[in-house]
Amino acid sequence: MRALTTAREKVKVLLVLYDGGQHAKDVPGLLGTTENELGIRKWLEDQGHTLVTTSDKEGANSKFDQELVDAEVIITTPFHPGYLTAERLAKAKNLKLCITAGIGSDHVDLNAANKTNGGLTVAEVTGSNVVSVAEHVVMTILVLIRNFVPAHEQVERGDWDVAAVAKQEYDLEDKVVGTVAVGRIGERVLRRLKAFDCKKLLYFDYQPLSKEKEQEIGCERVEDLEEMLEQCDIVTINCPLHENTKGMFNAKLISKMKKGSYLINTARGAIVVKEDVAAALKSGHLAGYGGDVWFPQPAERDHPLRTAKNPFGGGNAMVPHMSGTSLDAQKRYADGTKAILDSYLSGRHDYRPEDLIVHKGDYATKAYGERK
Amino acid sequence: MRALTTAREKVKVLLVLYDGGQHAKDVPGLLGTTENELGIRKWLEDQGHTLVTTSDKEGANSKFDQELVDAEVIITTPFHPGYLTAERLAKAKNLKLCITAGIGSDHVDLNAANKTNGGLTVAEVTGSNVVSVAEHVVMTILVLIRNFVPAHEQVERGDWDVAAVAKQEYDLEDKVVGTVAVGRIGERVLRRLKAFDCKKLLYFDYQPLSKEKEQEIGCERVEDLEEMLEQCDIVTINCPLHENTKGMFNAKLISKMKKGSYLINTARGAIVVKEDVAAALKSGHLAGYGGDVWFPQPAERDHPLRTAKNPFGGGNAMVPHMSGTSLDAQKRYADGTKAILDSYLSGRHDYRPEDLIVHKGDYATKAYGERK
Repeated sequence: MRALTTAREKVKVLLVLYDGGQHAKDVPGLLGTTENELGIRKWLEDQGHTLVTTSDKEGANSKFDQELVDAEVIITTPFHPGYLTAERLAKAKNLKLCITAGIGSDHVDLNAANKTNGGLTVAEVTGSNVVSVAEHVVMTILVLIRNFVPAHEQVERGDWDVAAVAKQEYDLEDKVVGTVAVGRIGERVLRRLKAFDCKKLLYFDYQPLSKEKEQEIGCERVEDLEEMLEQCDIVTINCPLHENTKGMFNAKLISKMKKGSYLINTARGAIVVKEDVAAALKSGHLAGYGGDVWFPQPAERDHPLRTAKNPFGGGNAMVPHMSGTSLDAQKRYADGTKAILDSYLSGRHDYRPEDLIVHKGDYATKAYGERK
Repeated sequence: MRALTTAREKVKVLLVLYDGGQHAKDVPGLLGTTENELGIRKWLEDQGHTLVTTSDKEGANSKFDQELVDAEVIITTPFHPGYLTAERLAKAKNLKLCITAGIGSDHVDLNAANKTNGGLTVAEVTGSNVVSVAEHVVMTILVLIRNFVPAHEQVERGDWDVAAVAKQEYDLEDKVVGTVAVGRIGERVLRRLKAFDCKKLLYFDYQPLSKEKEQEIGCERVEDLEEMLEQCDIVTINCPLHENTKGMFNAKLISKMKKGSYLINTARGAIVVKEDVAAALKSGHLAGYGGDVWFPQPAERDHPLRTAKNPFGGGNAMVPHMSGTSLDAQKRYADGTKAILDSYLSGRHDYRPEDLIVHKGDYATKAYGERK
């Protein structure tokens, strides 16, 4: 079978994942861990290739730094990102292919990737976890607006004070929700919100949905971001991180949001200025902030958004970066990563066009390239 | 204006609510508190009536017991229930009307009410919080299946271990969800789940939905409860508490559920046997239990469902009884209570038929009466 391929033998694949420890042994479906290695070790080794897996990715002497110098393929994830900076790419003399096992390749310096070794291919597993993230967004909206966290904490503490939690409990019905970007995730969020009878479902995006889709979902486009924010009770961020969205939700933009509104971010941590979000929550300008993305990751122990609260002692619905790594999603992105690897190792290079982020020295997708 | 009425003057109204304390001062919209009194004090007193409000409802010497002996109208809620037992009803010689500010009048002994003072009227504010509860159900399903609670606790503790929480994180997509009863709340739950692309949406109810509704929602009826339970990844209880549903989810019935499934109860605490649910969670037969109803209420400090966890340390999404008492719902049930009171005090007695539970010495609704 391998005789058909044009690929060189003994490709070195470097894989950066989070450690699962006992959890990975308990649950074999935790494919995205250093122990279970996306289920690709035997498959690679049977073909004569080498796989090196690590979670050690920080600092100049990390295993990641040591092993990337002769790796031909590097696989990383957004959950425990191996940051492929320009400096690291310059050291990776054999590198040809970077795969993101998941969605979102902002942890790779894409401009540098286009200039590395004649142009790297950066691919991700498009679609592998869009549903998982969209579900997480709807959950977070409900958790915040219904004031779940302080209520559950009350139960665990042995207390009972309905007024203390009902004082900031609302229904989602009849509220205005807006999404920043209406791509694969944003659109799925709006579709899931439709049956909740919100007052308005709004979106801000450079690319409008078709009129048919708008009608089907019951949503409206707002051309100006600030104009959308000032109408919204709830804002959900669903755009990629790139040069124009980095630090976008700073004190100034947050001040345009409605007093007492909620902000949900499952996109990327660096899209918000964490200190500004924490300050807005503390003052009550924001009633809540939730999501699963941080910068950097893992979040430092004293990251201000771990414990920031609103004046009533609630409004924090943060979790580690997990929305896209449900067991269902892990299966999908492990399968997708294997498919991309196979396309490369076999020499077919028949990638799904939607998986390509940069390819042959240039951006292959509008999502990252266009807005530079 | 009052000249038109046939009602006697100086009606004594007794109102049992939870205390709001400082919260009620902070948020005037907390209408369901002893401080804000559903907003009816001035309106009643301007008509010459008397209003007595208390949260003190337990034990034979409670304010509730003392004041009910000459009250003509008693208003209670499911959130902080003033239990109207046969013993208490026997002491309430002037009682004519019991209003539940909210939905669910199981804290009133309805058989006894039919025999008290020639037959009491028991009315509730039907519809006032069905959307609130349905939203809470969908939130709880997502919180459990996406393993939110241990993930948020990790963040608060300053930890970061994605594997520890992803090991029990799933998508709602492609799962089987079933509701026990498809009344006003159950139907709204199914409608909100439709866009989540579940594998199946099932319901068990003595009264089937119309074929048109089934098709619109995309759900199927299962004639036998156990047959439904053994198919479901997620079961949500949305039936009233009555003689036939009390203790229904005991060890035997829970054993028919799928291993690793989730049970959500926002109906009434006494529908489940709390010790049996806690044992099933501890063994891992249930992966999660969540909701907001307890028996009795307030829940005792050592109620087993406050802290019961699954073997992976998660799976508890309990909160105090709050799903139906969002600020939006409080406005609706305060308005509805006032409308029922006005109908009584004015002598019009033009109640909305759907609000009547018992009336003129008999059951006025199928929900409670039929299944005795």
